[in-house]
Amino acid sequence: MIFFKMASEKDLRPKIAITMGDARGIGPEVVAKAFARAAPYEFCTPWVLGDVSVLSWTVKSMNLGLKVMEVGEAESPPIQAGVLPVISLSNLSSGKGAGTISPVESSRASFAYVERAGKMAQEGVVAGIVTAPVSKEAIHGGGIAFRGHTEYLAEISGTREFVMMLAGDRLKVALVTTHVPLQAVAKLLTEERIFSVIEITARGLQEFFDLPVPRIALAALNPHAGEGGLFGNEELIISRAGQRAREGGLSVSGPLAADSLFHRAQMGEFDAVVCMYHDQGLIPLKLLHFDTAVNVTLGLPFVRTSVDHGVACDIAGKGLANSRSMEEAIRLAAHMCKMRSKAQISKSSAQQEKKF
Amino acid sequence: MIFFKMASEKDLRPKIAITMGDARGIGPEVVAKAFARAAPYEFCTPWVLGDVSVLSWTVKSMNLGLKVMEVGEAESPPIQAGVLPVISLSNLSSGKGAGTISPVESSRASFAYVERAGKMAQEGVVAGIVTAPVSKEAIHGGGIAFRGHTEYLAEISGTREFVMMLAGDRLKVALVTTHVPLQAVAKLLTEERIFSVIEITARGLQEFFDLPVPRIALAALNPHAGEGGLFGNEELIISRAGQRAREGGLSVSGPLAADSLFHRAQMGEFDAVVCMYHDQGLIPLKLLHFDTAVNVTLGLPFVRTSVDHGVACDIAGKGLANSRSMEEAIRLAAHMCKMRSKAQISKSSAQQEKKF
Repeated sequence: MIFFKMASEKDLRPKIAITMGDARGIGPEVVAKAFARAAPYEFCTPWVLGDVSVLSWTVKSMNLGLKVMEVGEAESPPIQAGVLPVISLSNLSSGKGAGTISPVESSRASFAYVERAGKMAQEGVVAGIVTAPVSKEAIHGGGIAFRGHTEYLAEISGTREFVMMLAGDRLKVALVTTHVPLQAVAKLLTEERIFSVIEITARGLQEFFDLPVPRIALAALNPHAGEGGLFGNEELIISRAGQRAREGGLSVSGPLAADSLFHRAQMGEFDAVVCMYHDQGLIPLKLLHFDTAVNVTLGLPFVRTSVDHGVACDIAGKGLANSRSMEEAIRLAAHMCKMRSKAQISKSSAQQEKKF
Repeated sequence: MIFFKMASEKDLRPKIAITMGDARGIGPEVVAKAFARAAPYEFCTPWVLGDVSVLSWTVKSMNLGLKVMEVGEAESPPIQAGVLPVISLSNLSSGKGAGTISPVESSRASFAYVERAGKMAQEGVVAGIVTAPVSKEAIHGGGIAFRGHTEYLAEISGTREFVMMLAGDRLKVALVTTHVPLQAVAKLLTEERIFSVIEITARGLQEFFDLPVPRIALAALNPHAGEGGLFGNEELIISRAGQRAREGGLSVSGPLAADSLFHRAQMGEFDAVVCMYHDQGLIPLKLLHFDTAVNVTLGLPFVRTSVDHGVACDIAGKGLANSRSMEEAIRLAAHMCKMRSKAQISKSSAQQEKKF
């Protein structure tokens, strides 16, 4: 009996593709460490998309006690503690560590992992993707137009409106603009875009975070929320978007002066803060959740989470990287996949009931 | 002997002007509460510049057990616990609370307190100023061009280069730009201005915070520090200013991606972070030090500190305001005045020694 129970639970574990990230950064290390702590198997059926030579070197040099096993996309990876199943898409390591890998080849390969993960998700082979960090700069320099994972995955899935959300226990932030110069932010703030971010964020909190009536706060763009127009008036646009969302039945406050808002949010007054630009959301998030925050893309047809840190080449290969954010990203992706499939099951049974 | 010792210690307490702020906000309450906790007398010889009727109503309605005493500028205020000495410059209260005061009169009066405090500091009557919050918007609406206390005090003292610094135990931030629309920030970043902020901040940390070799970090303007020019290139300007400061012998790091920088700073890696815009500094500061941060103006010929909160008219007159930031602002102003006068004494004795 116990055997059957376990088997059926295993079957329910969502299939997830985990990309290894840039081989010159800490991606391989945080992925391998997450497997060494058996984290992925608790929650999902994982494939790692990466480089078998780099992961083997990482596991060996850091004494992680894992068996790196090359697998194909067609076969289900073995769900077994102590095994790291890889779909290997490059062969970068000479066995001499991260510093000896060619930047051009490494960045090109890191893009290939993401490309394949996106394809697997689009084809329904996996229900979700978890990504380790790449160097946008290096990929871009290698001739591939790449503004970031989020933007790329939106593009290949034909998603027009999507939201980058960073989630920690005490604070969740959703970004209206992301990887653009600060100077360009004000011009990109339209009522339409802000309204759309509020809506997608609210739906995401309902679908994935079990918050039927999410309380959303809007951050102002200018200091002191513009102090009545004295230092800018983009707050009028933000305000109109908030009004429209309220009219649609959502619980939305603001625009509120950003400097005191995050204190209020972390004290429990709001479930998420809609932020106008990258650092407005990421500064408070990383201050509260340095090693544990997860980057979530809302609005895609598949689940996608990511670590909230960068490649950190300066500490790569030294065994110093913390895998907490990767573990949290895997845990959250699996949770989101389950919430979605539950919702789909109850939706389809409701439709069935209607038929009869 | 003890009597003489006390008298001489009292004489050494620096003279400080404390403005009451806008009568419709929480200024009168935080000032009165600070006196009720006897805080100012521990550190300084304080004058409050404000409104005797408003302060009397505040003390009475909140049962603060203080004697509000009107004094003149010429007479030294009595240093005595239980007494709140006021130079009264308006008569706003009808005895019915903050909500009944005319916004126009209140904002005009709040400006008069700052004006007088500035004059007393310029004339050397006081060594420092501590300010409670005013409404810039209301003062401006009343026809007085006023961008903020810091800017006003710089103007009347003919100070061209000054720095708004926010100080808490775990984090200090110095701002390159302050009360301007976010959109205008990038255009205001010049190598000259950033270099000047680094210098003034370093001198301030040396003079007032006992840090002979302050470690300063520069925050980048753009997300991921621009990711090598992919999202903006103002980092080049910041970088040049940092290089110049390093050549001048200062310990300066960066520009560093702002999202992870504040975590590093609060962990003790840097003594202060030079921030490019208001919310970049104030978001992390208020998250770490919500009730205890102090606003310090560096570069003026006199000491000036302030609370780090706004007028908060919504909770005014209800006894709900927290006076911690005001108490810290008074404590820090007194400390800064003492550090400055010590330095002046040792400088003049050094000069004396040279003469002989």
